[in-house]
Amino acid sequence: MKNNLTIYNTLTRKKELFEPLNPPFVGMYVCGPTVYGDSHLGHARPAITFDVLFRYLKYVGYKVRYVRNITDVGHLVNDADAGEDKIAKKAKLDQVEPMEIVQKYTNSYHKNMEQLNTLPPSIEPHASAHIIEQAEMVEEILKNGFAYEVNGSVYFDVAKYSETNNYGKLSGRVLEDLQNNTRILAGQSDKKNSFDFALWKKAEPEHIMRWPSKWSDGFPGWHLECSVMSTKYLGDKFDIHGGGLDLQFPHHECEIAQSKAAKGEDAVKYWMHNNLITIDGQKMSKSLNNFIMLDEMFSGKHKLLEQAYGPMIVRFFILQAHYRSTLDFSNKALQASEKGYKRLMDAVKTLSNLKISSLSSVNVQDIKEKIFKALDDDMNTPILIAHLFDGVKIINSINAGKETINKEDLSFLQKLYNDIVFEILGLENEEKSSSEDEKLKDVMNLLLNLRTEAKKNKDFATSDKIRDELKELGIIVKDTREGAEWKIQ
Amino acid sequence: MKNNLTIYNTLTRKKELFEPLNPPFVGMYVCGPTVYGDSHLGHARPAITFDVLFRYLKYVGYKVRYVRNITDVGHLVNDADAGEDKIAKKAKLDQVEPMEIVQKYTNSYHKNMEQLNTLPPSIEPHASAHIIEQAEMVEEILKNGFAYEVNGSVYFDVAKYSETNNYGKLSGRVLEDLQNNTRILAGQSDKKNSFDFALWKKAEPEHIMRWPSKWSDGFPGWHLECSVMSTKYLGDKFDIHGGGLDLQFPHHECEIAQSKAAKGEDAVKYWMHNNLITIDGQKMSKSLNNFIMLDEMFSGKHKLLEQAYGPMIVRFFILQAHYRSTLDFSNKALQASEKGYKRLMDAVKTLSNLKISSLSSVNVQDIKEKIFKALDDDMNTPILIAHLFDGVKIINSINAGKETINKEDLSFLQKLYNDIVFEILGLENEEKSSSEDEKLKDVMNLLLNLRTEAKKNKDFATSDKIRDELKELGIIVKDTREGAEWKIQ
Repeated sequence: MKNNLTIYNTLTRKKELFEPLNPPFVGMYVCGPTVYGDSHLGHARPAITFDVLFRYLKYVGYKVRYVRNITDVGHLVNDADAGEDKIAKKAKLDQVEPMEIVQKYTNSYHKNMEQLNTLPPSIEPHASAHIIEQAEMVEEILKNGFAYEVNGSVYFDVAKYSETNNYGKLSGRVLEDLQNNTRILAGQSDKKNSFDFALWKKAEPEHIMRWPSKWSDGFPGWHLECSVMSTKYLGDKFDIHGGGLDLQFPHHECEIAQSKAAKGEDAVKYWMHNNLITIDGQKMSKSLNNFIMLDEMFSGKHKLLEQAYGPMIVRFFILQAHYRSTLDFSNKALQASEKGYKRLMDAVKTLSNLKISSLSSVNVQDIKEKIFKALDDDMNTPILIAHLFDGVKIINSINAGKETINKEDLSFLQKLYNDIVFEILGLENEEKSSSEDEKLKDVMNLLLNLRTEAKKNKDFATSDKIRDELKELGIIVKDTREGAEWKIQ
Repeated sequence: MKNNLTIYNTLTRKKELFEPLNPPFVGMYVCGPTVYGDSHLGHARPAITFDVLFRYLKYVGYKVRYVRNITDVGHLVNDADAGEDKIAKKAKLDQVEPMEIVQKYTNSYHKNMEQLNTLPPSIEPHASAHIIEQAEMVEEILKNGFAYEVNGSVYFDVAKYSETNNYGKLSGRVLEDLQNNTRILAGQSDKKNSFDFALWKKAEPEHIMRWPSKWSDGFPGWHLECSVMSTKYLGDKFDIHGGGLDLQFPHHECEIAQSKAAKGEDAVKYWMHNNLITIDGQKMSKSLNNFIMLDEMFSGKHKLLEQAYGPMIVRFFILQAHYRSTLDFSNKALQASEKGYKRLMDAVKTLSNLKISSLSSVNVQDIKEKIFKALDDDMNTPILIAHLFDGVKIINSINAGKETINKEDLSFLQKLYNDIVFEILGLENEEKSSSEDEKLKDVMNLLLNLRTEAKKNKDFATSDKIRDELKELGIIVKDTREGAEWKIQ
């Protein structure tokens, strides 16, 4: 499997040629959602970023196992090591069992991801389904001397680990700074150092989600699940680990430490992080009231939104920025994306109907080369899309008779646009069926009004023709006192 | 919460008034699929049966927690206690990791269940996610003396249990007969008696899905997951346990024994079983080549099918039989259901447009009483549907001016049909959007041909009118050398 794909590796801070450990197999792990609320824009970006990578790797010919987890236990409020579990807190509010919260928001996440046309991952493991495996890794880390038990909880010993390893190598954090900056929260006093993190937490009496272990009835620390589930399904060493930039520290830094402490070597070859989303230049946050859920985006029902933006507009908009750049949502920018998206879809339609000539006046090979060069350059989708639009100009010129294309070049261009636009970028032609329904009703009204007028003018040939031809189309017209009614047979 | 619902309890073999243990809460557990292949007709029936019960209980006002499991480990080929795991076997065939099989077929099951408009359960626990809890129940049963360990596996001691309990009380099986009739399979020689069943199995070296336990690296017996997950999420005693009749023995009989042996009392108040499906009078089986997958049903792509039958036709067809009767699929019967379904949907549409009179000549209260009486009679949906069609006759008579209805009665009837048809029976109006698209294209062609003719006849008033009015509807007409083209703006 030959490829020229380069990936920016957060670990080495440079673009590297992608060389999988065991070609043609590729293992990719991406951090999924903690399912205690509806999905928002922040969930869409990593899902789409790594969906395009998944699609491209498969397109090149790799056999990709894509694992994306569901966090359903152990993720505490404020991402802290003490306090309430995010899911249990929501369950208490709604007066239901925590697993009902997990089910509800896993379902809604799946629905949104399907709307965004992201492919389902090969495996979607739940943290709560891997308690045994997590306890096993805690034991390994304890056995290797990189953790300690206090009052039924087990903490990772960062200082000990740092004696022989570089804690901070992913995020660039320096241990001394961490020590000074980390706030000490209530309940964390069991720790030797404030920067230590929980591997296993003894459950408070009111904590519902708990399992027996040799240390206590408790639950695993948040960072542990990803180290465990990635290696369980992808092997001790695998190719790609992705996630949002906000997870780089402490989550991914802790994952690196856990894997190294347990197995003696690093688990991940390429670390990839998508950058974050802002709304009108501001951080998305509940306190700023600018938290936009995906359902709100798709329906337009949010006070900051001037209109609805369909899933394909959102997808196209996200792909118009490079995944490592911040992305600012605004009505203006989204409306520009909507126009661009429609122009692209129109061009694809035009492309399927172009007339062929004996000679080509255009260079289709050049378009392809530029497009794949952009894709191979750390998935530079905005540049890729710019080249797609260069191609759109050419398509429209051919359609207008200003340029010509021969048969082979047309097939080549059609395949190229089909592969890139639909297969790799994962766009779909978003013509809402509901709006089609409305359109049919409108057009039928127009047609039946014409028929009424023809009748008035005693032009029965026309009025009968309309009725008869509709009947042939399976649409029955019935004249009533209130006017003509119609029904699909 | 007052209700008159009676349920046929398989355990007592009679219809009993439904009285939940802790009103207004109702706990319902239904056996879900073993996810190693696409969903077939046999999956649709229990899903729809208990979906209607779930909907009805919620309609009455209960707070229902509906748990339906996903079996992803421990279900061995031939439902036996030795041999290959169904999922691992398929994974080996497809050369993927077992959890990829689980993910793939869980996704396709969810898709099919959504097409059938079944509501998602409140919690959908996976067997592999509850290994710890299963090991805990094995320990309880061992501790209470109803199980024994041999070579790393643990078996339920049916003979011991039968000294003080009635093993067979659900299925009516008699222990002596079982002893004589049970085939001894290779690898079962560890058992004291052939009718004993596995609670924990030591994994063979080639077995991938395995977890550590105090007995061996192994996996739980198939029957155990349901006893564990039902009581984990619904409490040690809960209201309803449902499933297909094929699960009555041994699966549900073993569940009863496990719960009683572990907790000292029965877990389930009402046992409900839907009957099985036949195809043209024959048992559905792979060897008879009459195994019809739901996707095949919906697309019509199976050699036994004369046409496609949409999800709502399948749902309506299933509801036209009582859930405790066998149900025979045939093209003739499905086509009859399709007609009936359309007649019902037409009537609902007519109902929304009926003219009101000052007096009613019809008795709407009577229809409602009969409908709910049928529903309360152990969910007798075929009788209910017959009463719905009596109502359809009345609706059509009112529409034809032969009967009259006043304002209150009309609202009453509209609410009744809405509640029963859509909310409780869970039907949807299945007008395929794709066919609407086609219709729009057809009707637009007709309209543009009219315009062309008007132009030919120099009737430019009409041709311009058509173009202008379409423009107002957001449809742009463009005249080209090949004729008129149109595009939605």
